[in-house]
Amino acid sequence: MSKLKNDTFIRALLRQPTAYTPVWLMRQAGRYLPEYNQTRARAGNFLALCKNPDLATEVTLQPLARYPLDAAIVFSDILTIPDAMGLGLYFAEGEGPRFERPLREEWEIRDLTAPDPADHLRYVLDTVSQVRRALADSVPLIGFSGSPFTLACYMIEGRGSSDFASVKKMLYQRPDLLHRILSVNAEAVVAYLNAQIEAGAQAIMMFDTWGGMLSNTAYQEFSLAYMRKIIAGLTRERSGIRIPNIVFTKGGGGWLESIAAIGCDAVGLDWTIDIGAARSRVGNSVALQGNLDPAILLSSPETIASEAAAILSSYGKGSGHVFNLGHGISQHTPPEHVTALIAAVRTGSIQYH
Amino acid sequence: MSKLKNDTFIRALLRQPTAYTPVWLMRQAGRYLPEYNQTRARAGNFLALCKNPDLATEVTLQPLARYPLDAAIVFSDILTIPDAMGLGLYFAEGEGPRFERPLREEWEIRDLTAPDPADHLRYVLDTVSQVRRALADSVPLIGFSGSPFTLACYMIEGRGSSDFASVKKMLYQRPDLLHRILSVNAEAVVAYLNAQIEAGAQAIMMFDTWGGMLSNTAYQEFSLAYMRKIIAGLTRERSGIRIPNIVFTKGGGGWLESIAAIGCDAVGLDWTIDIGAARSRVGNSVALQGNLDPAILLSSPETIASEAAAILSSYGKGSGHVFNLGHGISQHTPPEHVTALIAAVRTGSIQYH
Repeated sequence: MSKLKNDTFIRALLRQPTAYTPVWLMRQAGRYLPEYNQTRARAGNFLALCKNPDLATEVTLQPLARYPLDAAIVFSDILTIPDAMGLGLYFAEGEGPRFERPLREEWEIRDLTAPDPADHLRYVLDTVSQVRRALADSVPLIGFSGSPFTLACYMIEGRGSSDFASVKKMLYQRPDLLHRILSVNAEAVVAYLNAQIEAGAQAIMMFDTWGGMLSNTAYQEFSLAYMRKIIAGLTRERSGIRIPNIVFTKGGGGWLESIAAIGCDAVGLDWTIDIGAARSRVGNSVALQGNLDPAILLSSPETIASEAAAILSSYGKGSGHVFNLGHGISQHTPPEHVTALIAAVRTGSIQYH
Repeated sequence: MSKLKNDTFIRALLRQPTAYTPVWLMRQAGRYLPEYNQTRARAGNFLALCKNPDLATEVTLQPLARYPLDAAIVFSDILTIPDAMGLGLYFAEGEGPRFERPLREEWEIRDLTAPDPADHLRYVLDTVSQVRRALADSVPLIGFSGSPFTLACYMIEGRGSSDFASVKKMLYQRPDLLHRILSVNAEAVVAYLNAQIEAGAQAIMMFDTWGGMLSNTAYQEFSLAYMRKIIAGLTRERSGIRIPNIVFTKGGGGWLESIAAIGCDAVGLDWTIDIGAARSRVGNSVALQGNLDPAILLSSPETIASEAAAILSSYGKGSGHVFNLGHGISQHTPPEHVTALIAAVRTGSIQYH
């Protein structure tokens, strides 16, 4: 394995000393960038872009060309696994993800199997390899997946929802069926993430977008337990180099201690929680990633700088903080506001290291 | 003042001993009840129903006729105040609330004034009086309002939203304008809730539906500070009888200690937080209301009973718990499942008192 020119992100995840607080942004390759929209137009649509390794590599690198980010994240979608299972992922224009064939019948759930990533998810692995080559060890590359529960939400409901009533109904009426889906999903996610590591991903992030809508006990049983299994199954080192991982449950601020205890290296925070308070709660067990409200990027460079400074100050001295948003960047973000944010983090964080 | 035949709800809010844990359900007069749908059809639509004291009284009482609930809540909407300000509340069929004239211009915000409840909100006060008469002191009647921040969300955005981007943009770019709206709203809410108390409301609840989407510091400044002002301005006693109040921020589990410290009698909990953990955090400072996931009511009577028992057990011994859902009841709830829930709470809670 070659040596990273900038390993600040990896070091922060492992709570090793760094010169400043590293920063990357969830959905950093996205619609707020005009160059992204151009490439997407060439691809035809979002999913075609995901499935085209050349173009996916191109958009992965676009934010790195504009901004001094400390990590790249492979351009893909959190729902590639159920698509590879045959559920038929598609995106209605201006709407969220949908599945053509959501799980409706018990036999469909019984028949569900984890896809071989080398087969149906080849396009993601190819993108990972291409991006790694293109990055030439400048900054690390993050691979990712949706969490088993979040995948299940879309697989059952067939689309986004304000309350995922079908999912919850299954959870409370037929927990055996939901556990069956989650087991297959967990097996699939481990294989998928390890294949991304094999292809060159240097850090891993798991997005649990919908775990936060569960009750405390349901979250532990139906989301966190499966993420724990995945963390246990992940390749932790490649050629002697650690592959750190990040677990992010949106709306999971109440469960930080238990998330931190599943064996992950870092916990992602949404913007509703004070990062200093979060740090007190998890102690030195994990690094923390977050947590600027993405809406702040719609304001002004001055406000962005002061809000970023407040987060850096709240986290305080020492390593273990990866600066990020608390959710994906909004498509309405002026690109120059991202410039302001990253400059504020870079210069404002030196005093804490 | 006459004496309540069943004051269990009031006593629990004041953390006085009770024989069992009282229960009512947010949105208990709603679309899951066929008799409600019949009355609504007679009114024409939801808003016409709210504005007709005779029919609003009728639907307020419907769940009480079916179930041994320990409180009634006046049938109304959280957005009556901005409607009375002239913003033109309406409901598109199958969608959430909207305003015909959301706040767009600075002069509109400068011109905003708190409506006189005796004038434009007369219909709510009339409903309160009528319901009080009809209840004949069987159980207490709850009056309510949206929180200043939640009202502002709809007043600015004009409708519900997944991220309330316009509201957040104003919050970070023109906090002075948002504070202006919130000040007027707070003044209006105090006058409105005190008028409901004057008309006969025996407890008060404030719904902060959207405060939970704010960062910790923004929540304190833009939502909680105004709720504190309202609590300070509420009539606390009428004819020597305490009028307890409940503050509910959906998604506010991370801020329980600070909510409990604004001087309210009780804090509402959504379903994501363990009520026993919440009780440990707030100690004996306030009562707690909640917090069954409304999705559980879609399952089976057996699951409903066991999940209700788990909440009662988690809260544990002693007074100070009002059983409720963690959010409004779903329209898809079978009415007999509510019967099962209330029976489970009534019989299952005696051992804790």
